[in-house]
Amino acid sequence: MGVIVGLEGGGTKTGCAVLDAQGALLAYGQGGPANLNFVSEAQQRESFETAIESALKGISEPVLALGYTVAGTFANWEWVLKRLGNPQAFAVEETRMAFVSTGADVAHGLAIVAGTGSVISAFVSDRLARTVGGWGALIGDEGSAYDLARHGLQLAVRSWDGRESPSQLVNAVQAFFGISDLRELIPLLYQRGMPRHELARFATHVLETAESGDALAQQLVVERATVLARDALACARGVFEPQEPLWVALTGGMFRQPSLFQKTFEEVFSREFPRAHYHTPLMEPAVAVARIAWRRYCADSA
Amino acid sequence: MGVIVGLEGGGTKTGCAVLDAQGALLAYGQGGPANLNFVSEAQQRESFETAIESALKGISEPVLALGYTVAGTFANWEWVLKRLGNPQAFAVEETRMAFVSTGADVAHGLAIVAGTGSVISAFVSDRLARTVGGWGALIGDEGSAYDLARHGLQLAVRSWDGRESPSQLVNAVQAFFGISDLRELIPLLYQRGMPRHELARFATHVLETAESGDALAQQLVVERATVLARDALACARGVFEPQEPLWVALTGGMFRQPSLFQKTFEEVFSREFPRAHYHTPLMEPAVAVARIAWRRYCADSA
Repeated sequence: MGVIVGLEGGGTKTGCAVLDAQGALLAYGQGGPANLNFVSEAQQRESFETAIESALKGISEPVLALGYTVAGTFANWEWVLKRLGNPQAFAVEETRMAFVSTGADVAHGLAIVAGTGSVISAFVSDRLARTVGGWGALIGDEGSAYDLARHGLQLAVRSWDGRESPSQLVNAVQAFFGISDLRELIPLLYQRGMPRHELARFATHVLETAESGDALAQQLVVERATVLARDALACARGVFEPQEPLWVALTGGMFRQPSLFQKTFEEVFSREFPRAHYHTPLMEPAVAVARIAWRRYCADSA
Repeated sequence: MGVIVGLEGGGTKTGCAVLDAQGALLAYGQGGPANLNFVSEAQQRESFETAIESALKGISEPVLALGYTVAGTFANWEWVLKRLGNPQAFAVEETRMAFVSTGADVAHGLAIVAGTGSVISAFVSDRLARTVGGWGALIGDEGSAYDLARHGLQLAVRSWDGRESPSQLVNAVQAFFGISDLRELIPLLYQRGMPRHELARFATHVLETAESGDALAQQLVVERATVLARDALACARGVFEPQEPLWVALTGGMFRQPSLFQKTFEEVFSREFPRAHYHTPLMEPAVAVARIAWRRYCADSA
C-alpha cells in the first residue's frame, strides 16, 4: 500500500511521522536541532537521519509521499528524498503546519509559532496571506523561547549588579548553569559558547519564576508576550475583520502549557479581536506535515 | 632614559601609546580588535603586535613600565611583557582609563564607556567604588554601539515586514549591507556570520538616520540612551550626593561626537544629578593608560 512521511526540522528538535495510505499514524521518531542558521549541515543531517531511522524502523512499505518543513531556512533535501526512494515531495510552510497541528482541516486564521524562534502567518482559505517575524535570534524572534531566555538572563545580571531590584531570576540562573557568581556567565556564554537551543531551555525557568510570584520575572513574561501579541495583531490587521470569529493557532514550546505568557497573549490579542478562539496543538508538528502531504497526495492521485 | 608604554585592547581596536620619562607623548600605534570574548587569541595577539610594532618603530630606549587594559576579559600578557623586555607592569581598569582620558588627574566621579560594548564605574578619590554593566553583547552592553546597531536592524526588519511604520532605517540597512531585499540579512548574519565589531559599525548609521529626522530611529536612540543613563544613575546613586558637582566621563564611540544620544543621556542623568559636568576624551585611551602607568611608575620610583 505504501506510507506517507512527514519530516519537520525545528530549532530544537526534528520530528518524523509515518502515516498509512488512509492517513492514520503508524510511527513517530525524533532527532536533534535542524535550523541551518544555527547548526551545521552535518548536525542537520544527523538530526534528520536519527528521526527518519527511528520512525521507519520495521516499516518496509514504499514511501508514496514526503511532506517537509524546516524552521528558518533551507535544507539539503536531496539525500532525504534518495533515502526514501524518491517519493513525491511537498514543501510545507512552518506556519501552515502549525495551523493544521491545532486540528483545523483548512488553514484559515492566524498561526503563531513561538518555539526556539518565532514567526506569525495569516491564512485565508488555505492561502498564505501574510507573514511577519522569523528574522532569527539576533534581530528578531520576539516572544520566542530564546528571546525570553536571553531577556531573563539580562534581567538576572541587572539584578545581580544592582541595576534592578532583587529577583529570584538570579537563583534560577545559578541553578540552571550550576554557578554561584553570575560573572561566570561571561566565559560560559562567549568563550565556550552555548548553542541557541540549549540557552532557549532557560525560558521554562523564567516562566516558572514568574509563576512563583517573582515581580521582575512576571513583568518580563508580560512584556515579551505583549510584544508577540502586538506582532500578531500587526499580521492580522487588514486581513481579518475585528468582529469575525478567528481561529488562532498557538504553537511551539512557549505555548506547551497554559502560563502567564499565554494568558497575556490572549488578553492583548482579544482587545482587538474579541471573537478570537485560541487553539494549541493536538499532534506533533511532523504529524501535521504528514497530514498535509497525505491530503495533497490524495488530491493529486484522485 | 627609557619610555613608558600604554596598551589598550578594545572591542574594535587596540591602541599603543609611548611616553618619554617626563610623561610626554612620543608615539602612537593602532591594531585590530582584542576582546577575547569575541575574537580569537590569535586575533588578539595580532592586534597587539600591530599596535606595538607601529608605536615602537624607531624607538630603541628601554621600556621602563607598561600600563595595560583590555575590554571585557583577560589577555595573555606574558609575550607582551617579554616583547617589551619585562618592564614593571600595571593593570588598569577600563573605566579608570576612560575617566583619566577625559583629563581628570584623580579619578573621582562616574565613567561611562559606551564603545562596541558598555560598562559604567563610580570612582571615589581614585578608588573604584562600584561597577555595573559589562556583561557582553548577548545579555548586556546596554547603550553600546553593538546594542544600538542590533536594535536598529531589528527595527528595520520590523518596518520592512509591516510591524512598524515605514522608516529610513530600511534604506540605511540596504546601503550598509549592499542588499535590496532585507531577507538577505538572514544568511548574512547567521550562516556567514558577522563579527561583533563590524556589526557595531551600523550604530553610526542609526545615529545619522535619527539626526536626519526619522521618527523610528529617533525613538530608538532616545530609548537606548535612556537605558544607559538609568544604568549610570543606578551606579551613581548612594555613592554620590545628588547635589554635589560630579565629573561624568563619557567615552567610547557612542560619544565620539555630540548627537541625540549624548543629549538624551545628559538630560536623563541631570534630572537626578543636576550639577553633573560631562567630559569627553581629550586623548586616545592608550595614552590615558600610559599616563596612569607613568604616574604609578614615578610614585614607585620616588
